[in-house]
Amino acid sequence: MNRLIELVNENLDKYIEIRYPEDIFKAMRYTVLLPGKRLRPVMCLETCRMLGGNIMDALPAACAIEMLHAQTLIHDDLPCMDNDDYRRGKLTNHKVFGEALAVLAGDALLTFAPQVIVKNSQKLGAVKLLKILEEYFQYAGAYGVIAGQVVDILNENTVSVASAETLDFIHTHKTADLFKLSIRTGAIIADADEAQISAMTDFAQKLGFAFQIADDILDETSTFEKMGKTLGKDKLEGKLTYTALFGLDKARSDLAHLLHDCRSVLMKNAFQSEIFEQIIGKIAVT
Amino acid sequence: MNRLIELVNENLDKYIEIRYPEDIFKAMRYTVLLPGKRLRPVMCLETCRMLGGNIMDALPAACAIEMLHAQTLIHDDLPCMDNDDYRRGKLTNHKVFGEALAVLAGDALLTFAPQVIVKNSQKLGAVKLLKILEEYFQYAGAYGVIAGQVVDILNENTVSVASAETLDFIHTHKTADLFKLSIRTGAIIADADEAQISAMTDFAQKLGFAFQIADDILDETSTFEKMGKTLGKDKLEGKLTYTALFGLDKARSDLAHLLHDCRSVLMKNAFQSEIFEQIIGKIAVT
Repeated sequence: MNRLIELVNENLDKYIEIRYPEDIFKAMRYTVLLPGKRLRPVMCLETCRMLGGNIMDALPAACAIEMLHAQTLIHDDLPCMDNDDYRRGKLTNHKVFGEALAVLAGDALLTFAPQVIVKNSQKLGAVKLLKILEEYFQYAGAYGVIAGQVVDILNENTVSVASAETLDFIHTHKTADLFKLSIRTGAIIADADEAQISAMTDFAQKLGFAFQIADDILDETSTFEKMGKTLGKDKLEGKLTYTALFGLDKARSDLAHLLHDCRSVLMKNAFQSEIFEQIIGKIAVT
Repeated sequence: MNRLIELVNENLDKYIEIRYPEDIFKAMRYTVLLPGKRLRPVMCLETCRMLGGNIMDALPAACAIEMLHAQTLIHDDLPCMDNDDYRRGKLTNHKVFGEALAVLAGDALLTFAPQVIVKNSQKLGAVKLLKILEEYFQYAGAYGVIAGQVVDILNENTVSVASAETLDFIHTHKTADLFKLSIRTGAIIADADEAQISAMTDFAQKLGFAFQIADDILDETSTFEKMGKTLGKDKLEGKLTYTALFGLDKARSDLAHLLHDCRSVLMKNAFQSEIFEQIIGKIAVT
């Protein structure tokens, strides 16, 4: 796992070169290179390896997905959205570079990420490259992660009236969609067949849900020091979260069930992956 | 020209279907469908026709470029950027939908636009599609229109110390880059050769510059009623503009020279286009 994280970090650093006007590239680099678990690129690389592909073929796409993830963080943290001052223990992008540059850095990453894929994955051939870009557009956009963020914003202060269905929509799109993009991209690069892609999409949906429930639990039970971001805000601001809707106990038991289902998908399909076992294990100890 | 504008409007309307969550699609549609000259998609379609292509093949890409243009308007108008309340005679996106949705609508358009191209241009084949997407990423991102906006923002209140070189950079990227994207995309779809693409890129650069100088002149000399946006703000806010740096007289004479050079490019290459003549003519009467 650490080797994959290092590989991702090295290449993220390499892909975003500072040119004129320096400020935009510095702002892009700032959030992309904040130390993190690199969960999404690692899942992309590991899926590729697990399904018989070469991880080096998936490296540009894996890094691009981390850039997209950073983009969502930069814009979600803006004053007009979640208004967060800290992220991964550091000041958020707009706190360092100002709002205008934070908006533009996010915008830039949205097209820079797929450009990194095209520039550095020519050996995949035009047909496969196009397929990967289609996945990117689908999950990054208004049908994907943005749909989740929109419904999240529109449902602040609606815990008492909101439905489990709405929360399901938010978690599916805001969190699980980037997991699906990571895993499906790795699978496509490995030339996985439809049945494998479908099984791993199901896995990604369940793992994404589990990850979000764990995040909601931690928001209530952890500390700033451990998480590197301001906690307890969701509750204060009346955000629709899993714990707010169902309580901590049900959240913990649903989390355990989801992670059990994730393991079942791997087992049933004879997918062997120490790294996915580790990821599941880490989410479980929440 | 009117037929092309109608064709673009019909297809913009068709491409952005309203789905759940409706607010994001409504916000995207709001700015994209504001009545406008559709200059960029018209230039894309007309370049394609002029160089022997079928305009129907270029229609999805032409509409995508208008969506990208709308994206830049939505984010440029935000309070943290130019803080504009009116655009094309109507309230700006964030004034109608709020800042959070305006940020997300812009974000969504950045990946929705190339998705429209891929979904609706399959007959172009993977290689050509990829080439068009590469142009899109290049001109839409940190090397293109965003670089222009960044330098523009960083150079507020620097009229007295700023150089013609800086203004040149802003105009090249903030304005001419979308003209180049429009024209080059039309040329690529028409299977134009390198010499033709190069000549039309030169044309686009000059026409973009002329358009921006004309815009700067109008900002000083026109009225809200004619332009549909608040005028005179550039001067008040100490923005670096052509007229601020060189004065109205030089702006007018440089504009005339640039438009003359645009006509020369068409003539030298035996490119026949009534529509480009009309566009040049309209910019000339500023």
